[in-house]
Amino acid sequence: MSPEPAATPHPPRRTYSYLGPAGTFTEAALGQVPEARDQIWRPVRNVGEALADVVEMRADAAMIAIENSVDGGVSTAQDALATMPGLRIVGEYLVPVNFVLVARPGVRLEDVELVAAHPVAYAQCLQWLSAHLPEHAHLPAASNVASAVGIVDGISDADAAIAPPGILDHYDLELLAKGIGDNPNAVTRFVLVSRTAPSPAPTGADKTSLIVELPEEYPGALLELLEQFATRGINLSLLASRPIGDALGRYRFVIDADGHVQDERMADALLGLRRFSPKVIYLGSYPRADRQIVRYPERYSDDVFIEARDWLRGLISGEPEA
Amino acid sequence: MSPEPAATPHPPRRTYSYLGPAGTFTEAALGQVPEARDQIWRPVRNVGEALADVVEMRADAAMIAIENSVDGGVSTAQDALATMPGLRIVGEYLVPVNFVLVARPGVRLEDVELVAAHPVAYAQCLQWLSAHLPEHAHLPAASNVASAVGIVDGISDADAAIAPPGILDHYDLELLAKGIGDNPNAVTRFVLVSRTAPSPAPTGADKTSLIVELPEEYPGALLELLEQFATRGINLSLLASRPIGDALGRYRFVIDADGHVQDERMADALLGLRRFSPKVIYLGSYPRADRQIVRYPERYSDDVFIEARDWLRGLISGEPEA
Amino acid sequence: MSPEPAATPHPPRRTYSYLGPAGTFTEAALGQVPEARDQIWRPVRNVGEALADVVEMRADAAMIAIENSVDGGVSTAQDALATMPGLRIVGEYLVPVNFVLVARPGVRLEDVELVAAHPVAYAQCLQWLSAHLPEHAHLPAASNVASAVGIVDGISDADAAIAPPGILDHYDLELLAKGIGDNPNAVTRFVLVSRTAPSPAPTGADKTSLIVELPEEYPGALLELLEQFATRGINLSLLASRPIGDALGRYRFVIDADGHVQDERMADALLGLRRFSPKVIYLGSYPRADRQIVRYPERYSDDVFIEARDWLRGLISGEPEA
Amino acid sequence: MSPEPAATPHPPRRTYSYLGPAGTFTEAALGQVPEARDQIWRPVRNVGEALADVVEMRADAAMIAIENSVDGGVSTAQDALATMPGLRIVGEYLVPVNFVLVARPGVRLEDVELVAAHPVAYAQCLQWLSAHLPEHAHLPAASNVASAVGIVDGISDADAAIAPPGILDHYDLELLAKGIGDNPNAVTRFVLVSRTAPSPAPTGADKTSLIVELPEEYPGALLELLEQFATRGINLSLLASRPIGDALGRYRFVIDADGHVQDERMADALLGLRRFSPKVIYLGSYPRADRQIVRYPERYSDDVFIEARDWLRGLISGEPEA
Repeated sequence: MSPEPAATPHPPRRTYSYLGPAGTFTEAALGQVPEARDQIWRPVRNVGEALADVVEMRADAAMIAIENSVDGGVSTAQDALATMPGLRIVGEYLVPVNFVLVARPGVRLEDVELVAAHPVAYAQCLQWLSAHLPEHAHLPAASNVASAVGIVDGISDADAAIAPPGILDHYDLELLAKGIGDNPNAVTRFVLVSRTAPSPAPTGADKTSLIVELPEEYPGALLELLEQFATRGINLSLLASRPIGDALGRYRFVIDADGHVQDERMADALLGLRRFSPKVIYLGSYPRADRQIVRYPERYSDDVFIEARDWLRGLISGEPEA
Repeated sequence: MSPEPAATPHPPRRTYSYLGPAGTFTEAALGQVPEARDQIWRPVRNVGEALADVVEMRADAAMIAIENSVDGGVSTAQDALATMPGLRIVGEYLVPVNFVLVARPGVRLEDVELVAAHPVAYAQCLQWLSAHLPEHAHLPAASNVASAVGIVDGISDADAAIAPPGILDHYDLELLAKGIGDNPNAVTRFVLVSRTAPSPAPTGADKTSLIVELPEEYPGALLELLEQFATRGINLSLLASRPIGDALGRYRFVIDADGHVQDERMADALLGLRRFSPKVIYLGSYPRADRQIVRYPERYSDDVFIEARDWLRGLISGEPEA
Repeated sequence: MSPEPAATPHPPRRTYSYLGPAGTFTEAALGQVPEARDQIWRPVRNVGEALADVVEMRADAAMIAIENSVDGGVSTAQDALATMPGLRIVGEYLVPVNFVLVARPGVRLEDVELVAAHPVAYAQCLQWLSAHLPEHAHLPAASNVASAVGIVDGISDADAAIAPPGILDHYDLELLAKGIGDNPNAVTRFVLVSRTAPSPAPTGADKTSLIVELPEEYPGALLELLEQFATRGINLSLLASRPIGDALGRYRFVIDADGHVQDERMADALLGLRRFSPKVIYLGSYPRADRQIVRYPERYSDDVFIEARDWLRGLISGEPEA
Repeated sequence: MSPEPAATPHPPRRTYSYLGPAGTFTEAALGQVPEARDQIWRPVRNVGEALADVVEMRADAAMIAIENSVDGGVSTAQDALATMPGLRIVGEYLVPVNFVLVARPGVRLEDVELVAAHPVAYAQCLQWLSAHLPEHAHLPAASNVASAVGIVDGISDADAAIAPPGILDHYDLELLAKGIGDNPNAVTRFVLVSRTAPSPAPTGADKTSLIVELPEEYPGALLELLEQFATRGINLSLLASRPIGDALGRYRFVIDADGHVQDERMADALLGLRRFSPKVIYLGSYPRADRQIVRYPERYSDDVFIEARDWLRGLISGEPEA
């Protein structure tokens, strides 16, 4: 990780925008990207800035939270992807929502009276705090990192701060407790977004992200949309309606589908979607964070699609059957 | 029409098999085929012989009844098309089921006591006979033509015969009454069958005939079959289940779908069928007898299919959107 | 079996109309009906007469061929059921299409030169005749029974006749050969039709017959019709389109569905059909001829329907869940 | 509105829990409930506490944000409704996300240097702040109300606070600017939740909220779920997948459907859902906040359902048709 520019001019380094400052969960997600190592990491204040950096060429890619975020902004991110052209998701990353309680060196847990914390993070650690620091008071912080930085800088009166574990990589802080979030299984899903480019090659464990508007609002339109996937044996791992906002009762759907655009069944489903809907936004095909191999009925394999095309070609040419 | 072989060797004449003898409704259907004029017409005894003539190269094409036949054999014809490989339907023809009462010259209607008729034709003229010849008796005939030929030859005791109108083109007979069938709207549908060959070019008023086996018997399998058409805006004009006969509860479906295999939506539906079913028999795309232009929602036009493919190609290549 | 009226006046005997005369396949079907024993059997000339007998109270029930008939008239039967109100199918019977060759006592197979046969039956025995009587000639008969009766009466010149096996129960004839039909598995399906009445009680091996018109012709209307069955786990054993005849492109569908109207899933499907279509004709629920128990996924059992209704009632009443 | 207990003992007053303190958007939603006037309003710290108050009888109802909340906690609310039994949504309320900038009396906009704000609200006013207070600094606050309370109490160094408009009803503060949020159309959707009870009577403009688990994960299961609505002409205004969390790839769906459980088509859809899914949570039918009359095809009206039931009853009884 290197927030400062590289000394050598060649090759030119790439820039990655992310919700900063250093130490956020988003930075932890970026830390999972091998290609981002030793490149320029550009902290920004929100998802809109991160995506605008990409579109306006200030960054090569942006890491943004897309599901279950504790840093906020998920529906903002979905709406931005639906309305900003020229973007492509190229990777997915999962970060456990795993808070730590940190303090200046020398401070002990029993000394803690005032806890700095972003209000959302604070709400997620209430059970632990009630059990272990029943007498504490809360000092609101502007972000999950600002809570700890205030302590380091000495500008905060807090005795301890709630922060992501990554904070310990950046600041000289003492770990008082870890895993203090009330939900030990909470995970935030992030995606890495670049400008439009060919998708990464299929790995067998891929996901395709789409945003699709219904052609018109009638009972059954949604069904017709989803049939495009079901009739090709494609499972969805995310489906969410979002009001489009231009007229009452108009919706777009945010969709993650199992598989890659280079899989025959996915390509065929995309053709069907495009014919069905006035607006299909292809956000990209990319490896799933969980590396789970996509399973599907044999009748939807590439071979079956290719064989069917050969068969049709034979029919049309009028060759006698073999 | 020329039942006898042609004298000139060039060009070689084509042979058409049909349910004979001359004068049947099937011959009337063949009379609608411009290309069959001045070629060899080969009368046979049943559908099986007609199709075998084609497969075994004794004929170039066969005319067979496929729906509402009064000459019989429709389900035999469907089953034969399902099991004999190497055949292709190339045309469709409609013949009104329009019986005449004929007699030797000089015979008057009031003289008629014994009426020769194929039993099926006889049953279809019962109302007319009861009204106009209440005292008549029935002499069964082997076919709709044999009834009249017996009179001409003098080997039949009948005073009159029920026959198709075409009989008057072949024999010196007197027309006693026409349109004597009980159902004035009855029409038999015929198809012209050749060996496998490229289908006639699309006319905009085409039909595609298929026989499809369900992959396995479960509630919903039929639905999935029909979705292949519905999700491409394709109407069906014929749908009939036929037990396959190899195991209880296994069916094949005889299908006529509006459109031509060279229409994008039909080609796409055939690909879907082929992937869905272990056995799809393409019997051919050919002009509809009624010349009715096929109508379909604009979203299933060729343009939309082509545009969607271009769009997908752009996506995969990673080009920025226009 | 008793074609003549019974001597005792009490209880009043029931009348069954069937395609006669005695000896037809239809009579064989009627012979399978235990309740018809010792009742009045009324031979008629065609399906229309048989059904009219029921509607106009001349008969209590009629036996008619409904699938794969060699006596003809299947589509006539379907159309009649679609248009004559007040009828109900109460039973299903299967009769093998099993022809015999019969002659006057003393005649030997090698003596046979002229064979009397209904033309349709004759066509179905051609292979056997070619193999065993290659030199024979055909004398057309008006029906499968008339062929044999002519021999018995001496008014026919034929040496032998093709007839159903039942002929031997009625006439003093010698069996020259049996099983002479070309397709040893051919079976005709018959139904027994009464006036509207409660359906026979469910047996677990039942069938429900329906005729349904599509509400309007659009791609997908048929699909919606069939979904009514598929979404309740109901299999179809017969599905056939029939043009209605009142306007181009309008169809009705002849349907046999597995199950009984008193099965919850079938009742629910009928409700769905009725809401969907302007015209649903319920022809009846009755035991299947093959006594095959109807199988369906557990989630469509009566229990599940009843439980769901209880659950909904609880919801609406606002009772806390158990 | 009356945070203090009522003086008169009769009738007993009802208690409403809401995300406090006084002045939040949630309180503004509660202000829209006529029945809540002059009752006890109980401020709590999060959605979990609010719903627990209802279940454990400390409150009669709770107001919670369910969509587009700026106070946070939407997915928490959805998950809580999915897992806490005994709850029922009885009303829906919309509150514009409409921030104000407030200060102690006498402070002028040009004097403001330090702005107290909950970090999420702060992020939503960034554009306005950049334009009007480019030199300001941010003082994080624990909530949208705490920001302003700190100013009133004098314990905050901030010159001004970002807060909901409702703050002005509770505290002696000066309005420096209103409508300062970056998205002028932002609206938060709230629902009022009681213990299980009969739903409010249908108004014609109703909504039914459900949470449904898929029975098992297979392509097409979701489709089958949604067919339950589409085949009864029911539109959805919200559909969102949520991972159940007990096993990979298992989902529940949060659904808002147009109509009331006492509408025939909705009752029928609920029956279908219950038969389809192992777990259907009915959260309630209640008037839509936007009072938009629900429209649906005539064929799904109550009359059609009732007529179909009468028809079926007639069929089963075997009465001749009228």
